[in-house]
Amino acid sequence: MYYIGIDLGGTKIKAGIVDEDGRIIKKHSIPTGRTRKSEEIVNDICRIIKMLLEDTNISEADICSVGIGSPGSLDRERGVIIANFNLGFRYVDIRDAIQKVISVPVYVENDANCAAVAESIAGVAKGLDYAVLITIGTGIGGGIIINNKLYIGSNGAAAELGHIVLCMNGEACTCGRNGCWEAYSSATALIRQTKAAALENPSSKILELVDNDMDKIDAKTVFDAAKLGDETAIKVVDRYIDILAEGLANIVNIFQPDVIAIGGGVSKEGENLLAPLREKMKGRTFFVGDLKNTQIVTAKMGNDAGIVGAALISKRM
Amino acid sequence: MYYIGIDLGGTKIKAGIVDEDGRIIKKHSIPTGRTRKSEEIVNDICRIIKMLLEDTNISEADICSVGIGSPGSLDRERGVIIANFNLGFRYVDIRDAIQKVISVPVYVENDANCAAVAESIAGVAKGLDYAVLITIGTGIGGGIIINNKLYIGSNGAAAELGHIVLCMNGEACTCGRNGCWEAYSSATALIRQTKAAALENPSSKILELVDNDMDKIDAKTVFDAAKLGDETAIKVVDRYIDILAEGLANIVNIFQPDVIAIGGGVSKEGENLLAPLREKMKGRTFFVGDLKNTQIVTAKMGNDAGIVGAALISKRM
Repeated sequence: MYYIGIDLGGTKIKAGIVDEDGRIIKKHSIPTGRTRKSEEIVNDICRIIKMLLEDTNISEADICSVGIGSPGSLDRERGVIIANFNLGFRYVDIRDAIQKVISVPVYVENDANCAAVAESIAGVAKGLDYAVLITIGTGIGGGIIINNKLYIGSNGAAAELGHIVLCMNGEACTCGRNGCWEAYSSATALIRQTKAAALENPSSKILELVDNDMDKIDAKTVFDAAKLGDETAIKVVDRYIDILAEGLANIVNIFQPDVIAIGGGVSKEGENLLAPLREKMKGRTFFVGDLKNTQIVTAKMGNDAGIVGAALISKRM
Repeated sequence: MYYIGIDLGGTKIKAGIVDEDGRIIKKHSIPTGRTRKSEEIVNDICRIIKMLLEDTNISEADICSVGIGSPGSLDRERGVIIANFNLGFRYVDIRDAIQKVISVPVYVENDANCAAVAESIAGVAKGLDYAVLITIGTGIGGGIIINNKLYIGSNGAAAELGHIVLCMNGEACTCGRNGCWEAYSSATALIRQTKAAALENPSSKILELVDNDMDKIDAKTVFDAAKLGDETAIKVVDRYIDILAEGLANIVNIFQPDVIAIGGGVSKEGENLLAPLREKMKGRTFFVGDLKNTQIVTAKMGNDAGIVGAALISKRM
């Protein structure tokens, strides 16, 4: 049997047919066109599902379910996207629309939760009872696996791990509070920190790397400049990793999971990020003597995490 | 069938025989004598167990298990208290000692976890799948109930909720980090904040309430002075509740439990504490639309929580 997963992002709609071990049989990707009406976007999702079935010669009878991963508020019971602010979606009954095309169960799930499910089924958390996935992107997304199931709390809205205040009265956060972890450790925050440092130190290699165009600064820029030995960049990276370590130490003290997997663009830095991160976490997590410690690793599923997790969400509910 | 629970505190050893619904049939309490050798304290625990059986005419055959609640590090597998710093315990094989007196399973568990189990079985979290207990005492203790079971993580050391950093580079914490929630919201921290305010404002009612003896200031003093309209005390209480709200909003964003129960001495303030607390939490927790919100309540089990939770720990494992 097969499963269809849809990763409904602000830039791209990614979709795939996945087997029960999380292997992608076939995938497609189209631009979201986020300014379009929700009906048009939903129509495209239906169209891409039909394409996947045609391309693979897999019949509807061999599909167990369709899952849609989306940021924002969801009504899992009714299969409705309550609000996806990126796309301007409000109360979009996506289950109903998809079931007109394919008559199988349709699930909606938070995108960060989908990424955690993907790691749990086919990635670095495979076979582990306790895992936390931290996705570093526009924000900080959290996904929690407990007893090999997705943890969503009493109302389905749990795991907003980016919205743990780490610095009372600190940086403003998009959620309305001040000092959230996300306001310091997201890719957006790192870009802001990089730009501020480049402005203050115009002779640093940061601006050189982007041809003096501040708009070209992304989350990778400062890591690249630091690798070139640039003092300003080294300081930005060091402070960024220091705060990331503080937030991750909190997660360890709360959950003591088998593994914390770091996903999202920044995680591509690999050991360049993780080695100093682990060093900075030492002494900040609660003493567990000779008991096993949480492993800090990079997520493995990369760009496919959304498709695989959405497709197989029912296996971790 | 009955269960025996031991609450091994720094001041008192409390013990009781409990039925499976968490009702205490008989209890005893003796001073811990914390400077004594561990053998003497363990002997007293064995003696109190025998007393309970004699006083109630309950036979050993009617006892399912014995549970010991203790702060510090525990080895649940072997029934050993690895380290209880209050009592100077190091690798005390309490299961072995107790099984020489009564031949039943013996469990050791963290005291904050016991309190959560007590609320789950017979208190405000009864019948709820998702609950978090926050005990405000010398420190901030956490106990987490997920799917009606105690959550202890992959190594048994989870739920150190007092050691979530809320203010990077802030107040020093006993755990070695800076800015932990506990360093702001424990009873110890409140007493420190009260003393500092009293020193700065010697004409406030705080010192009057304790006959000008700073050593008499406890966690209740500042609430009492605030009730008398004392400006200094009102400010201390307001700031204390504000930070407590920040920490609790973090817990909601992480877990979205059915209920957060506040226990420990400070919780005796009841609605005097909770009403402004709930007000200050508004807008700080993640938006859940018309979904159900976490209820913030005071714990119900009071001084019996340790006995009941330790006795019935096996029902939530």
